[in-house]
Amino acid sequence: MRTVTKDTITDVFLGYIGQDTDPRFKQVMTSLVTHLHDFAREVDLTHDEWRQALQFFMWTGNITTEERNEFVLLSDVMGLSSLVDMINSHPGGTSSSVLGPFHISDAPALAIGGDMKGDVEGDLVLWQGVVKDATGTPIKGATVDIWQTAPNGMYSSQDPDQDKFSFHAILTTGADGRYAFTTVRPVSYTVPTDGPVGVILNAAGRHPWRPSHLHFIAKAAGYRELVTEVFPDDDPYLNEDTVFGVREDLVVTFVPQPAGSFPSGFDLSGKVSGPYARVDFDLVLVAV
Amino acid sequence: MRTVTKDTITDVFLGYIGQDTDPRFKQVMTSLVTHLHDFAREVDLTHDEWRQALQFFMWTGNITTEERNEFVLLSDVMGLSSLVDMINSHPGGTSSSVLGPFHISDAPALAIGGDMKGDVEGDLVLWQGVVKDATGTPIKGATVDIWQTAPNGMYSSQDPDQDKFSFHAILTTGADGRYAFTTVRPVSYTVPTDGPVGVILNAAGRHPWRPSHLHFIAKAAGYRELVTEVFPDDDPYLNEDTVFGVREDLVVTFVPQPAGSFPSGFDLSGKVSGPYARVDFDLVLVAV
Repeated sequence: MRTVTKDTITDVFLGYIGQDTDPRFKQVMTSLVTHLHDFAREVDLTHDEWRQALQFFMWTGNITTEERNEFVLLSDVMGLSSLVDMINSHPGGTSSSVLGPFHISDAPALAIGGDMKGDVEGDLVLWQGVVKDATGTPIKGATVDIWQTAPNGMYSSQDPDQDKFSFHAILTTGADGRYAFTTVRPVSYTVPTDGPVGVILNAAGRHPWRPSHLHFIAKAAGYRELVTEVFPDDDPYLNEDTVFGVREDLVVTFVPQPAGSFPSGFDLSGKVSGPYARVDFDLVLVAV
Repeated sequence: MRTVTKDTITDVFLGYIGQDTDPRFKQVMTSLVTHLHDFAREVDLTHDEWRQALQFFMWTGNITTEERNEFVLLSDVMGLSSLVDMINSHPGGTSSSVLGPFHISDAPALAIGGDMKGDVEGDLVLWQGVVKDATGTPIKGATVDIWQTAPNGMYSSQDPDQDKFSFHAILTTGADGRYAFTTVRPVSYTVPTDGPVGVILNAAGRHPWRPSHLHFIAKAAGYRELVTEVFPDDDPYLNEDTVFGVREDLVVTFVPQPAGSFPSGFDLSGKVSGPYARVDFDLVLVAV
């Protein structure tokens, strides 16, 4: 090994890996380090750039807390999170999309037809659909975990003026597989730009905007968990999501409904006289 | 961009990079993200593995302090640090090698022939050489910053029983370019294994040992700074340095010298009656 050179170091590294190493670990490490070394050789990485990269990772570590995970955000804006989603997607089901950092576990239960809007100012949306399998059969007892921004562009965890579970809820389907609720229209927002990821976006001449969306996690016994997001088709950032989360089957139309047409079967039935928007979106789960 | 897929996401990412982006930043980012995406596709990276990687980076960030930089250590054991050294090496000069995390700035000056051993138990070494340019001309006024482990395998910054600058010194050459000092023989040691890097080494079936060495930073006006290490040729880990630091021209023989042969011109002259080892090692600097 004394004769390690820039052209042999990758083989030397691979030669260090023990015979009894877990085959998957060996496969991942071999590919990772080969690409890492090829990258450094390809660009003739300088000492200054290497030091800057280490400083960048130290800063990313320093700024990361329970509430803010800058490593996840870095993976998001590099396209890695979405790529992993797509690599692991299950044909026949609704596309998955990034979880993001704002999910809160154990949101309160909301009955079918329940309301998340409350007194909040914003455009009323009636959202409904069916959780079903790939053959179209409704799934009973599926849970649909929903979260979104308030109209001010902030999730509850970012906003001291919101309750902890504001715009977070979990619905459970009945025999018809149907879920339905009312809410406000979500808004476009920027990922945090006051840290290392902001520096990268700025250096690359990229904006930090995400198109507006609702998040969903759908679960049912015997089916693969689906983590996804759904986007309105008229959002200005739809074609340039900074975290690469948009998939064609996750784009929906918020269909305007005339005043006086609000249906029965909702918490707000009888209380809404003006116009609203309606979204129909089915969630298709893939069997395990 | 709505039709982003696992096969198009890399091009979508590259398309996000602005026209006015610094060309070098664009080149580095293009290569880095292309390799990152190719890696994920090549191994079909799973969500669990992605989450483990993020946890790994969070842990690496948490354990990193002013005194312990786990990101540098990770770069070292992945071979990236040594690869960057070799990519940026200057033909005609002494090879560079990893800086490592134990250098302390502003070590005290030591006169030519000075002693670093003091009262410490260990094998006495007389070390000398010439700082010269690629044509062999001695360089006057070059500084040679030296640091090494004590015989217990610890650098001063790791060891509360050592003074801050124990086994750290800076020599300055005269007109003959010569530097010379006495010290103890350094010892093999392990990189820290109680953190994320230890987990990686263990999973890969790798040991954490580095062959013994002395560190040098040589500087002189008009020449490129040389950061390097020098290794005894009889160290058992010479051919399997866990951070890939060994280069053929950095390996020296510790030549045994008989009792009664200690020369004049050293702080210890007249005080050493037993055997010792002698190393001759010239440092060749490349002009800027």
